[in-house]
Amino acid sequence: MRTVIIGSGAGGLTTASTIRKYNRDMEIVVITKEKYVAYSPCAIPYVIAGEIPSFQDIIMHTPEDYRKNKNIEVITESTVVDIDSENKNVIYYDIDGNKNTLKYDYLVIATGGETFIPPIEGRDLESIFKVKTIEDGMKIKNYAEKSGSAVVIGAGAIGLETAYALRKLDLKITIVEMAPQVLPRGLDIDMAEIVLKYLQDLGIEVILGKPVSKILGDENNRVKGVIVGNKPYSCDMVVMATGTRPNIELAKKAGCKIGRLAIKVNSRMETSIPNIYAVGDCVETVDFITKQPILSPFGSTAVRQGKVAGKNIAGIPTEFKPVLNAMVSKIGEMEIGSTGISELRAHQDRLEVVVGKAKALTRARYYPGGKPIYVKLIFDMNRTLIGAQIVGGERVSERIDAMSLGILKGVTCEELVNMEFSYAPPVSMVVDPIALAAEDAWDKFQKLE
Amino acid sequence: MRTVIIGSGAGGLTTASTIRKYNRDMEIVVITKEKYVAYSPCAIPYVIAGEIPSFQDIIMHTPEDYRKNKNIEVITESTVVDIDSENKNVIYYDIDGNKNTLKYDYLVIATGGETFIPPIEGRDLESIFKVKTIEDGMKIKNYAEKSGSAVVIGAGAIGLETAYALRKLDLKITIVEMAPQVLPRGLDIDMAEIVLKYLQDLGIEVILGKPVSKILGDENNRVKGVIVGNKPYSCDMVVMATGTRPNIELAKKAGCKIGRLAIKVNSRMETSIPNIYAVGDCVETVDFITKQPILSPFGSTAVRQGKVAGKNIAGIPTEFKPVLNAMVSKIGEMEIGSTGISELRAHQDRLEVVVGKAKALTRARYYPGGKPIYVKLIFDMNRTLIGAQIVGGERVSERIDAMSLGILKGVTCEELVNMEFSYAPPVSMVVDPIALAAEDAWDKFQKLE
Repeated sequence: MRTVIIGSGAGGLTTASTIRKYNRDMEIVVITKEKYVAYSPCAIPYVIAGEIPSFQDIIMHTPEDYRKNKNIEVITESTVVDIDSENKNVIYYDIDGNKNTLKYDYLVIATGGETFIPPIEGRDLESIFKVKTIEDGMKIKNYAEKSGSAVVIGAGAIGLETAYALRKLDLKITIVEMAPQVLPRGLDIDMAEIVLKYLQDLGIEVILGKPVSKILGDENNRVKGVIVGNKPYSCDMVVMATGTRPNIELAKKAGCKIGRLAIKVNSRMETSIPNIYAVGDCVETVDFITKQPILSPFGSTAVRQGKVAGKNIAGIPTEFKPVLNAMVSKIGEMEIGSTGISELRAHQDRLEVVVGKAKALTRARYYPGGKPIYVKLIFDMNRTLIGAQIVGGERVSERIDAMSLGILKGVTCEELVNMEFSYAPPVSMVVDPIALAAEDAWDKFQKLE
Repeated sequence: MRTVIIGSGAGGLTTASTIRKYNRDMEIVVITKEKYVAYSPCAIPYVIAGEIPSFQDIIMHTPEDYRKNKNIEVITESTVVDIDSENKNVIYYDIDGNKNTLKYDYLVIATGGETFIPPIEGRDLESIFKVKTIEDGMKIKNYAEKSGSAVVIGAGAIGLETAYALRKLDLKITIVEMAPQVLPRGLDIDMAEIVLKYLQDLGIEVILGKPVSKILGDENNRVKGVIVGNKPYSCDMVVMATGTRPNIELAKKAGCKIGRLAIKVNSRMETSIPNIYAVGDCVETVDFITKQPILSPFGSTAVRQGKVAGKNIAGIPTEFKPVLNAMVSKIGEMEIGSTGISELRAHQDRLEVVVGKAKALTRARYYPGGKPIYVKLIFDMNRTLIGAQIVGGERVSERIDAMSLGILKGVTCEELVNMEFSYAPPVSMVVDPIALAAEDAWDKFQKLE
């Protein structure tokens, strides 16, 4: 029996490793366009910033590692061009340009996503970069070293992390975001303001609510500036942090059903075609709160989906559950996280909510080194938690995880008010900021009665 | 209407503030033996260590603050000697030794606990200290400055924190613990070993499984050593970190029902006598897992109980729920936390369990500054989480809180394996150590089937 996996990102390689964990005999072949495999794309901004010394550091394993340690074959720099699902074959061009056909018993499509480049005039100039592959990261870092200024288009997590990294390299930075706030997918505008102020304090200019209408080039075809709302901004380079779009072409060719946003899979990560699975940025999943299709383009989601696909292929029935799209980002000394639905999206979905907020410290008031932390909790009218946003100087990520668990298990406002939090002065306040925010919401619920 | 509160610890003062939050008119009087109120006893070891500059820092409010800001009267250095529950009077001696009678409509007993001093020969010598009040802390710090060595009796959190603090002041330290491990209430022996090794690496000697049989004095009635298992250990001072016993004498006098361990209260924090509440270290509560009476001598529990008592007195019906006794401690660079039942206690209670363990890092493998973190999860045979222990270099406390929430909401092993954790390289690994530990347990459950 042979499983062929197309793509060597977190989803593809986790599927491979999981199959091997539970099945010693399966032949496993990974085919990838990339030269480097098993690296962490989320780490790219932190290498650019110099927080991680080199791009080599973020490569976790080589193809040789997979062959030797796990008996997994990884074919690099090779492009799958077709899937013949009737005869169970994939057709690919290898590194030397030769066409090959490989038979599969199980196929996993883990083709990931591509940076979406908006149709802006000047988008084909040189010194325009995306933040997708390790090579992209290397190019940005190299070019930044000889640049004085950069415009980052897009104020999502990758955009902000890259903007911060380039600022750390002493470039003059302008972020341009079409939405009226930074981090429009994760945060509400009130929480985004805290992040905005932090960015501005770092000397980063942030332009909100406007698109880049044109990228300007010089005689050497290099970027010299951008136009935003009729106003020119000069810069030496542009970074496109404009989000990703799922790579679904191969799946389409194979005849897999495509959903509203990406490849459609069931909870076992199976596509509509028997024995073909799909995982990672190329699939759509289900939103836990709205029950609607949603993308979840996170490395952690890809890993979890890879585990589910791998177990199912290995004969252990497992389901992938609807997602909250919990996220966390660290920008300088600020940690930003969110999970579940935002207040804005709740309003858009005509879902009535009550919000609780708290500002507190990460340690007992008198304990040196404590940092401000801001918590926002969103409850539905049954008083059940459906969303959380936290911004602070430390200890945000695990609080978000606690709130994710709370949402998944239907925790109520009252339960959070009375909830038992561990306490010691160096690591927390005697009343956790989450309990304070829950109490704020609880007081509002009382007034509604 | 008047509420009288006996005791100015976390439980008493939180009750006072909570009543005031929801009731502007209630007269509130707090009577306390202490001179300083509203300080954090949990912070004492950190002041001794010098991590918090001075004892003044840990005093959050003065009696004047309460009077001015909250219209709460605090009568300090006064001792309540009797409660006449029939006529609703408390009888107390004030700072000048005058006997007073004060009428109450509601009474709150928040008399806390007392350090238990075991009946060891030599226990009345000078230079034997406890770690209870701010004055105790001051005495330890003063005496340590002229001492070269100390024996700490008891290896609970306070014992270890104080031992670490004195070690930081350059004293030679010996910890003596009767149980065969450190932190016997929170951790199993396998997790305790990690802490033990850390203490030993700091140069602290730890003697386990043996009691101190005698404390030796010199001609000036000062400690010069202890005897443990026939062997003498010389030292200049002894710290009794031997746990606390609830102060229940007043409640007994009033006729309140006493439970197996302390004052009996219902879920509204009411004693057996109408209009008399009790909160904090002097009451017993219910263990969430075993449903048995248990003590919960934590500042955070006292605060939560104070909020419940306060709301009920203010006319807002609220319940205090059974506890997990979640705890966290920070000793040097090591954070230690636990919640729910331990494997050892499960065995003692003849509860069959499956354990999952993981050792991982607090950040992505390649991200500088990541520290080891050890996770142990305990599941019952329905695969429901009933306990967690975590030891690591950072980010332990909020993970314990997430696990507390999980236990309270009945999270299963499979749910934790598949659970969504937020991820960014500077703050987490792509698969959280909790998910890894859950997977370890899940694999064991599979083998049992």
